[in-house]
Amino acid sequence: MIPINLQCRLAARPVGLPKAADWAFVEESSAEPGEGEFRVQVEYLSIDPAMRSWMNAGRSYVPPVEIGEVMRAGGIGRVVDSHHADYAVGETVYGVFGVQRFALSDGTGVTRVETALAPAPVQLGVLGISGLTAYFGLRDVGRPQPGQTVVVSAAAGSVGSIVGQIARIQGCRVVGIAGGRDKCRWLVDELGFDAAIDYKSDDVRARLRKDAPDGIDVFFDNVGGRILEEALRRLAHGARVVLCGAVSQYNAAEAPSGPANYMQLLVARASMTGFVIFDYADRYAEGVAQLTRWLESGELRSQEDVVHGDIRDFPDVLLRLFDGVHTGKLILALDASQ
Amino acid sequence: MIPINLQCRLAARPVGLPKAADWAFVEESSAEPGEGEFRVQVEYLSIDPAMRSWMNAGRSYVPPVEIGEVMRAGGIGRVVDSHHADYAVGETVYGVFGVQRFALSDGTGVTRVETALAPAPVQLGVLGISGLTAYFGLRDVGRPQPGQTVVVSAAAGSVGSIVGQIARIQGCRVVGIAGGRDKCRWLVDELGFDAAIDYKSDDVRARLRKDAPDGIDVFFDNVGGRILEEALRRLAHGARVVLCGAVSQYNAAEAPSGPANYMQLLVARASMTGFVIFDYADRYAEGVAQLTRWLESGELRSQEDVVHGDIRDFPDVLLRLFDGVHTGKLILALDASQ
Repeated sequence: MIPINLQCRLAARPVGLPKAADWAFVEESSAEPGEGEFRVQVEYLSIDPAMRSWMNAGRSYVPPVEIGEVMRAGGIGRVVDSHHADYAVGETVYGVFGVQRFALSDGTGVTRVETALAPAPVQLGVLGISGLTAYFGLRDVGRPQPGQTVVVSAAAGSVGSIVGQIARIQGCRVVGIAGGRDKCRWLVDELGFDAAIDYKSDDVRARLRKDAPDGIDVFFDNVGGRILEEALRRLAHGARVVLCGAVSQYNAAEAPSGPANYMQLLVARASMTGFVIFDYADRYAEGVAQLTRWLESGELRSQEDVVHGDIRDFPDVLLRLFDGVHTGKLILALDASQ
Repeated sequence: MIPINLQCRLAARPVGLPKAADWAFVEESSAEPGEGEFRVQVEYLSIDPAMRSWMNAGRSYVPPVEIGEVMRAGGIGRVVDSHHADYAVGETVYGVFGVQRFALSDGTGVTRVETALAPAPVQLGVLGISGLTAYFGLRDVGRPQPGQTVVVSAAAGSVGSIVGQIARIQGCRVVGIAGGRDKCRWLVDELGFDAAIDYKSDDVRARLRKDAPDGIDVFFDNVGGRILEEALRRLAHGARVVLCGAVSQYNAAEAPSGPANYMQLLVARASMTGFVIFDYADRYAEGVAQLTRWLESGELRSQEDVVHGDIRDFPDVLLRLFDGVHTGKLILALDASQ
């Protein structure tokens, strides 16, 4: 029986927040896997701020999703059909399968998922790209020393919440910047941050002065904009700014603004370094092993926000990234019966 | 006989280009050097773009010059009076003596100048802070490899012209960005740059595409603004941006703008690092020795623009930095008879 596939395709480049008209849904028979291919039934989709940046035209670290293409997404699914020697029916796999019910794959970029180790949502979060981004970005680019002050923006998000916890495990003073009192309480009370700043109601400048009294040694930036400028004002001598994302800019209808006070890098003899997790692919195993140990010891807590639904729910779930409510890793779990 | 000192003091913080009313001249007897002090008659003043930034309020790598203070300046002069065991009358010394005819010093930050090695203007230029800034900024922060492409802005200036030559000596492809056809011709014909882009009349974007076909591995930035953004667009994978100055911004009457496309650092996995030469004080001797060898071998050419005049000419000479005409190291030589 050939299954019916449902795809979410990019219909137009959004201006500002993506709206319904920017998407098109296409229902058609899934093609038959050829020799060396297999079919995956997608069960979990990773919903990430970077997705919004993939929808914009222009030079970036990956090509933009083209108009008419299936929206790009990482996901976990089950092999349901296989003409591939390495992948058998029933196996659980991770890959960039796209926002669709069924994907064909030749195995490129696909990894086997050890579901015995942790449930799929954790595999997409702490043990997936989010956790690895936090791990390598903080350790290899940020290089914090015990006792140093690490500040992370979008601190209640999938990457930020892990960055802060790893920094705490490494013996750093950790300050998170997030939107809302509840998120800030969660960061301090549940995740062990030393302080959390609510950029929606706190005076960020005054709070950074108080919470990072010796300056910021590592700023792990997921948001850009005003928060980046405030952090640059407080850099300690020799500080490292890790550029991981700029979520405040992705939905900007006008040209994004750069940090007006970037010359604070000179004042502080600091560096700002761009970082893309894909460059660490050959070290993922190291990262996963360490993150797993921390999870098992209880030092690291994982938080997933799993929304159950269907491919047609993807546009609304994506918007949850930008409404400032969710915490941790946002995942769309696809109901198999639909 | 107690000499009459003439000082140029900061009278007001300039908005835009400094104007006459921003300065005050004060003529009074030079104080008597106390025990452990000596008096220097200033003979040459180093005139540098950074001076303009010292006139602005706000956090920088040195405190701002306060209203009523003698304008800060590096200079070379002769000891004319001494109660200091290490400095004898007649010796030639370098120090931050300020824009005045006579300075008192206790020796802090003062170095002896070997006039037999090179004339004073060369000692203030290639063998002084300008040359050392080029040497350590390019080598330690930029870290170019032979065959890589180095682009430098304000390329015909005191630092830029040396950065480009050192990069050429190190086997790099060197592209300078400067204002005006004459400067560009000088960079290519006299200093051996591979290409020079006239930002006043060339299409900088098109020229960088042509002259840096494999991207920019090291961008040594003295200017900021639009030129920095164009360079960020062309960064090669793993590029290093050396932040040395932002001369396009120092005279800005409004808040300076940051590079709107700073996330190109992420696209290119590149870093942007602020750099202040004072941090390399314990390695100046190494830098001077290497620069001297290159000067003697003829591989490195020194260019000074020496203006003869008096303390009262300082405001006009300073403006020459920003009129786009001069090349190389700008120096005010003080006529001793005045």
